[in-house]
Amino acid sequence: MTEPLAVRELAAALDAADPLAAKRAEFDLDPAVAYFDGNSLGAPPKHVAGRLAAVVREQWGGRLIRSWAEGWWDAPVRVGERIAPLVGAAPGQVVVSDSTSVDLFKTLVAAVRANPGRDEILLDAATFPTDGYVAAQVARLTGHTLRRVPLDELSAAAGERTAVVLANHVDYVSGRLHDMAEGTAAAHRAGALMVWDLCHSVGAVPVRLDGCEVDFAVGCTYKFLNGGPGSPAFVYLARRWQETFDQPLAGWAGHADPFAMEAGYRGAAGVGRARSGTPDMLSLLALDAALDVWDDVDFAVVREKGLALGDFFFRCLDEILPGADVPTPRDHARGHQISVRDPGGEPVMAALHERGVLGDFRPPDVLRFGLAPLYTTYAEVLRAVTTLREVRESLH
Amino acid sequence: MTEPLAVRELAAALDAADPLAAKRAEFDLDPAVAYFDGNSLGAPPKHVAGRLAAVVREQWGGRLIRSWAEGWWDAPVRVGERIAPLVGAAPGQVVVSDSTSVDLFKTLVAAVRANPGRDEILLDAATFPTDGYVAAQVARLTGHTLRRVPLDELSAAAGERTAVVLANHVDYVSGRLHDMAEGTAAAHRAGALMVWDLCHSVGAVPVRLDGCEVDFAVGCTYKFLNGGPGSPAFVYLARRWQETFDQPLAGWAGHADPFAMEAGYRGAAGVGRARSGTPDMLSLLALDAALDVWDDVDFAVVREKGLALGDFFFRCLDEILPGADVPTPRDHARGHQISVRDPGGEPVMAALHERGVLGDFRPPDVLRFGLAPLYTTYAEVLRAVTTLREVRESLH
Repeated sequence: MTEPLAVRELAAALDAADPLAAKRAEFDLDPAVAYFDGNSLGAPPKHVAGRLAAVVREQWGGRLIRSWAEGWWDAPVRVGERIAPLVGAAPGQVVVSDSTSVDLFKTLVAAVRANPGRDEILLDAATFPTDGYVAAQVARLTGHTLRRVPLDELSAAAGERTAVVLANHVDYVSGRLHDMAEGTAAAHRAGALMVWDLCHSVGAVPVRLDGCEVDFAVGCTYKFLNGGPGSPAFVYLARRWQETFDQPLAGWAGHADPFAMEAGYRGAAGVGRARSGTPDMLSLLALDAALDVWDDVDFAVVREKGLALGDFFFRCLDEILPGADVPTPRDHARGHQISVRDPGGEPVMAALHERGVLGDFRPPDVLRFGLAPLYTTYAEVLRAVTTLREVRESLH
Repeated sequence: MTEPLAVRELAAALDAADPLAAKRAEFDLDPAVAYFDGNSLGAPPKHVAGRLAAVVREQWGGRLIRSWAEGWWDAPVRVGERIAPLVGAAPGQVVVSDSTSVDLFKTLVAAVRANPGRDEILLDAATFPTDGYVAAQVARLTGHTLRRVPLDELSAAAGERTAVVLANHVDYVSGRLHDMAEGTAAAHRAGALMVWDLCHSVGAVPVRLDGCEVDFAVGCTYKFLNGGPGSPAFVYLARRWQETFDQPLAGWAGHADPFAMEAGYRGAAGVGRARSGTPDMLSLLALDAALDVWDDVDFAVVREKGLALGDFFFRCLDEILPGADVPTPRDHARGHQISVRDPGGEPVMAALHERGVLGDFRPPDVLRFGLAPLYTTYAEVLRAVTTLREVRESLH
């Protein structure tokens, strides 16, 4: 179809005025593809492949076992410090380790242990599934009850039985942004601890973990942080909880003196206590390299562009696909994704892929379009909506 | 010092006759260094750096999110199948996932759940520390008692209260090899399940998990399998336990239909049920590449050379450092390492490092020399012992 002239010109004007336009050249992206899945797998910064090969040759090969003492062993905390500013954390509270699922298990068990005399875990009912699976296991092992509550009712649901509340900062299906300050305060008023899952918000929306007095948080690094497929997750432990953090995956890497090989566990001082086994160094150093793209970026500009891309997505829908069923909030209480319900389901997304527009599909009927301000253009947003209309016309 | 002529000539003759001599050229090793820490961090096969860079450029960059459906998602099981022959496992019983510490937690909890009505976990008292830390947490969460028993007494100690026995196949300090068939049979006679930690045996000694009717095992891939620093560990689930495997880190990657995003957990059929979160793909594919070096190798030859390197190490000690205190068994009940006690402790190993002989130190007084048959030479063994004598003479 022909794109309406007004939005085509608007896209060009917005791209021309984009203060992040030069950033796209730092990423390895096929120019034939419009990539809308940075909310699931961020694109690789161009320098990562070479940096990783150099790590293998120079650090692993060249220095061999000596590299553990020359930066590797401390890398989980060092890389955590690079993520801390992106989540509003003062230094010493973020460590990179394991997967989100595993980190959730650690923090949930530690949270219920830190809040004894209560027997309930409250969970955002719309959570990404793994959080629910893990929370159910934690409840089972600790003798707690897991109660799933719609996000809007979480704050009111927290009560005197509630040990901990677990919620997603940005909903993975709708892209809706939850109020971290309000949710955390409500949990605290009930005497509960608050754990936030930041997977869909870190690198996209402003996160103020310290400012909201959050207790614990976990997040993933392979979405908006572009750390690579399955790159290790991170844990935030508020400083006030570190000394007593009592976690179930108490492996040797979290020990106060790991190379003393003591028979008994003594947790490390600081956030390193959230570590478990030997850290996965190649993936961690790929993430370390990928984080370089943030060094010269003002996060406020990133957020502003993410919202502007979303606003323009809505504008294009209004002009090209009026009446589209969009669960993503039109106001700015959202992350960097636009979701469109389509009764055609997964085949619609497959057809978009065939036409070079790469989003993804979430059951039962949601097409997700991630907006990565570091590389997504307004022209691509227009292309996505135009192509979606073409696909709908061809399939229906 | 001057090396005794006989051992110098013997080293040359042994290297000349080494059927694996050509393998060394496949590894990226500084020729000035004699590397004896392949039992802690295996050396990189030369092709890994390039393969990993290609994964970043072609799979992550070129195919982006599509790569998950084009081989990534199934890679943990596919790479597990490559490890299976090295641990005597028929197909479908090994999966690569997480760290050894995390995998131990999964298997121990699943093992005690699979053997109800018993309240004790028995642990090899000389275990690598992380196993003990994790077992203590499992005992605490499941209401079991953790009892630490010297390795030689484990079999007799298993009784009607014992739910599970956890032991190390090769002791990380002494290099001693435990009898897997006998230990497993003793656990089974007592009605207990048997979990083996293979970290120091996989890729070094013959492992017959199926043949010994082992229930569960875990192992690491960054030692003799050369997977890279902190490369992901593996879990062996005997087929008979898979259908009921009930693990605590039940994340979305172990779900029967992960992309259906179901609110309730249903474990996958098969060994994939031991997976937890999103797999760490770059590290996993580095391991995948590294495993290529085993493709054209007869494992019996690897074991034979590992023992011969050890025998030659003893011969050199006898000639050059008679009376050395060696906890490693002189008979062949050992892995591929020789340990030497030295009252000089860690400074002795530091001095060896300065002279280009890279082993490692374990408290209180053990110098460890790993023997990696794919790249260690007999001449290097002679150099290690000669250099050790020089260091001792200079320090004492």
